[in-house]
Amino acid sequence: MVDQHCHGVRRDDPPRSGFEQLVAEGGAPAPPGTTHFDTPAGAAIRRWCAPVLGLEPHASAAVYLSRRTELGAAEVNRRLLRGAGVSAFLVDTGPEAPDLLGPAEMGRLGGAVADEIVRLEQVERDVAEAGLPAVDYAGALRDELAARAARAAGLKTVAAHRRWPGSDPSRPSRGSVIAAAGRRLADPKARLADPVLVRHLLWAAADVARERSLPIQIHTADPAGLTGFVLALAPLGVPVVLVHCYPCHREAAYLASVFPHVYVDAGLAVALTGAGSAHILRELLELAPFHKQMYGSGCHGAAELCYLAALYHRRGLARLLAGRIAEGEWSVSDAARIAHMIGSANARRVYRL
Amino acid sequence: MVDQHCHGVRRDDPPRSGFEQLVAEGGAPAPPGTTHFDTPAGAAIRRWCAPVLGLEPHASAAVYLSRRTELGAAEVNRRLLRGAGVSAFLVDTGPEAPDLLGPAEMGRLGGAVADEIVRLEQVERDVAEAGLPAVDYAGALRDELAARAARAAGLKTVAAHRRWPGSDPSRPSRGSVIAAAGRRLADPKARLADPVLVRHLLWAAADVARERSLPIQIHTADPAGLTGFVLALAPLGVPVVLVHCYPCHREAAYLASVFPHVYVDAGLAVALTGAGSAHILRELLELAPFHKQMYGSGCHGAAELCYLAALYHRRGLARLLAGRIAEGEWSVSDAARIAHMIGSANARRVYRL
Amino acid sequence: MVDQHCHGVRRDDPPRSGFEQLVAEGGAPAPPGTTHFDTPAGAAIRRWCAPVLGLEPHASAAVYLSRRTELGAAEVNRRLLRGAGVSAFLVDTGPEAPDLLGPAEMGRLGGAVADEIVRLEQVERDVAEAGLPAVDYAGALRDELAARAARAAGLKTVAAHRRWPGSDPSRPSRGSVIAAAGRRLADPKARLADPVLVRHLLWAAADVARERSLPIQIHTADPAGLTGFVLALAPLGVPVVLVHCYPCHREAAYLASVFPHVYVDAGLAVALTGAGSAHILRELLELAPFHKQMYGSGCHGAAELCYLAALYHRRGLARLLAGRIAEGEWSVSDAARIAHMIGSANARRVYRL
Repeated sequence: MVDQHCHGVRRDDPPRSGFEQLVAEGGAPAPPGTTHFDTPAGAAIRRWCAPVLGLEPHASAAVYLSRRTELGAAEVNRRLLRGAGVSAFLVDTGPEAPDLLGPAEMGRLGGAVADEIVRLEQVERDVAEAGLPAVDYAGALRDELAARAARAAGLKTVAAHRRWPGSDPSRPSRGSVIAAAGRRLADPKARLADPVLVRHLLWAAADVARERSLPIQIHTADPAGLTGFVLALAPLGVPVVLVHCYPCHREAAYLASVFPHVYVDAGLAVALTGAGSAHILRELLELAPFHKQMYGSGCHGAAELCYLAALYHRRGLARLLAGRIAEGEWSVSDAARIAHMIGSANARRVYRL
Repeated sequence: MVDQHCHGVRRDDPPRSGFEQLVAEGGAPAPPGTTHFDTPAGAAIRRWCAPVLGLEPHASAAVYLSRRTELGAAEVNRRLLRGAGVSAFLVDTGPEAPDLLGPAEMGRLGGAVADEIVRLEQVERDVAEAGLPAVDYAGALRDELAARAARAAGLKTVAAHRRWPGSDPSRPSRGSVIAAAGRRLADPKARLADPVLVRHLLWAAADVARERSLPIQIHTADPAGLTGFVLALAPLGVPVVLVHCYPCHREAAYLASVFPHVYVDAGLAVALTGAGSAHILRELLELAPFHKQMYGSGCHGAAELCYLAALYHRRGLARLLAGRIAEGEWSVSDAARIAHMIGSANARRVYRL
Repeated sequence: MVDQHCHGVRRDDPPRSGFEQLVAEGGAPAPPGTTHFDTPAGAAIRRWCAPVLGLEPHASAAVYLSRRTELGAAEVNRRLLRGAGVSAFLVDTGPEAPDLLGPAEMGRLGGAVADEIVRLEQVERDVAEAGLPAVDYAGALRDELAARAARAAGLKTVAAHRRWPGSDPSRPSRGSVIAAAGRRLADPKARLADPVLVRHLLWAAADVARERSLPIQIHTADPAGLTGFVLALAPLGVPVVLVHCYPCHREAAYLASVFPHVYVDAGLAVALTGAGSAHILRELLELAPFHKQMYGSGCHGAAELCYLAALYHRRGLARLLAGRIAEGEWSVSDAARIAHMIGSANARRVYRL
């Protein structure tokens, strides 16, 4: 199986509060009197990860965390990453974070090969912090993107996560980029938010992706709002992979069904919804072409999420396919081929692994 | 069970057309040649409420309404409210309506304690109709909100129901409020729609809620559109309960999973979807932390909706939890604790009952 | 069964690439190395249409297409259209296309009666291309709409497909229409996109629909965004049928539950999702009044889609209703009546067939 979309996990063993924040969507502490273990992901960790650490299923949170500390982070990560049964990790190296494992380490611990996915916003920030004049911003960004892309399996953006910036999907003019870069360079540590510069970054990335035949992953909570940009990208032939779209995954699946260059994964929602995740897989499989879906755990920080995503992907898809076979809808060989396409073949084709 | 979000039911026995409008979402008459009994809620009333009135399941609409009249509204309300098995009602007293039972009456008929939820728009309207100069509007609103909140368990707004007014979530300036109040006071009977005054009302309510440690219920059909406001509220520590979010309940559950101060209920959708409601509960339980979900019937006007919401909540959740146990996903004690949290414990904690 | 919303199917036998594009949502070719048969619709064609052509279930795509050519388009269309078991087709005659069967031909091959649904955008284009002065545009459009409506069972628009144009649902002023018509008439072959003219077209159609008691079908991917227009139409008493709303069909069902003049169908999503379609029907049936749902295949180009939509509608609804009966939720006669309303009675009433 190819995990086409993940992040590094923590190399150290965080204290309870830190661990809880790793396994919650927003990364904030649980309100007083509550715990993030009281979530579908928390219940799934106690059920499925506990045995991987040698505990009974449904071990309490306290027992689980104590055992985690006892084994040590390296052993826990090794067991969970290897247990995920992934043969290739594509790792978004995101913001530099020395406490997270890099791609090579993820691969080594997980018994898999590993490649890098370049986070566009990190490249942009590196360029913005370099202290260039505004007129050189676009060129430096282009060069740095090309250099980073040369060693990577794909690119990824999070800047349009909530919505596409503004109403215009098109490539901004050179003049508007220089003007916006002037403002940007005055505060390079801020999060990239200027609509002109976000659009410029995505179009610059599209150029590099086309040159190197790399896909672009777009983390989005509003796939329908991306339609204009996705349509504008179509002539370039750059594959676009919509990731982390829950709860708008059906909209993403719809785009994948309409546009030849659009792909989709279920992302972190599988691990976070745990026992309920089969319905998300079902909804993706409802309309998205079988050759357009991929497996991506979207995991970040905790190896538990990587393990759970793989486990629930396999279980959910297996149950779904068995149901289709039992109803006489799909043949056994259809079902096997569909599982293979989604689990690895599509990613191998699109990322040219 | 705590019904953390309901309205009073009619104290009289309405004629058929009036009853039909009570049990339909929009409150409009059914088109000629049709009946609102031909809905999921109508079928559920005939199935489940008929036996409470001493009829066979699936009694016809005519038989049901005739029996309703025979028993009289007081007896029907007593049977249905008591049958709901609720130990505490939190009653949105909304627009004043002498034909609806107040909180104390709801409690007495239902064999429960009852508290008031203050409808912000009603307080604002009372202030707007008082004939003050515009410069005194904000102060009078603040004072009246504080006075009403002193006797209440929470606050509720419906003004941002369809969408957040404008693109700015922040507290409006004093000057802009005075200017808008001048226009408002010229037509105080109109529905509050001015974006500045809606934002002002919500921020004034947030101040009062913080002072008194009360939650604010937000009735919304666009939870994702509230993200900016919800984020801006976070530093105040005021709990926000998103109610009536169907069909965007997954977006609401997502917000509840990301923001420590956000809670969610399934609202009136449970009673209105009847036989299909288990899927809505399943979708809420998919991602929302167990300590962030509450039971709220959202019922209004007809005691049938109060009864059906409680019945389908119990049945749907029981079946869902039994399924999780059977699959080995959750332990029996996990399931019991989850049912307890959602049914009452979360509401008791957040509303400090 | 009444198929209240379909298009003509191809009268000829397209080559493989052409056939694949007919059965894919966007009409684009599959990416290199993939095939549109690797979709839920493709699998459903191999499973269910193959036997109609005398093949084994799950026949390969190559075998299927070869058999299709062998039988010839007329025989294939006859078998599939007749196999759909439809007694009346309402055919959107859309853009003129000599390679598609017209309503009379659809009826003859399908053993059914057939009526026309007038595509508003085609009427508008015919008027725009007639070379009139801008000041005569509105009058000519009104006359042409009335003439076309006189022979039709309903009207249909696709111009607001992605979203309502602008923020104003109201009827545009005469002056603004003349100004916009001036620009329009300079490029009459372009797709109608001007917000003023789109709104004008829909309001002109609403006038005609009211005069002739015809419904208007609105193809929309954003039903919630239509709320303002739908509300503004209410006083006219013109039925509005929301079609092709997937994946926002729950929003459409919500509107159908709130507004007395709004109806909904599941559209092409049933055929395109195939084995997964029962969940879409379930979600529509969740809230929409039983007297507000209709069957409409939304099929276009390939008779396979017409056949599959009817087959999955029947199977999905039958299973759903059987489940409701088994759970004791609905009586057997309730279930039969609901199937009858959705399958044909509602369409016969609304379209006055």
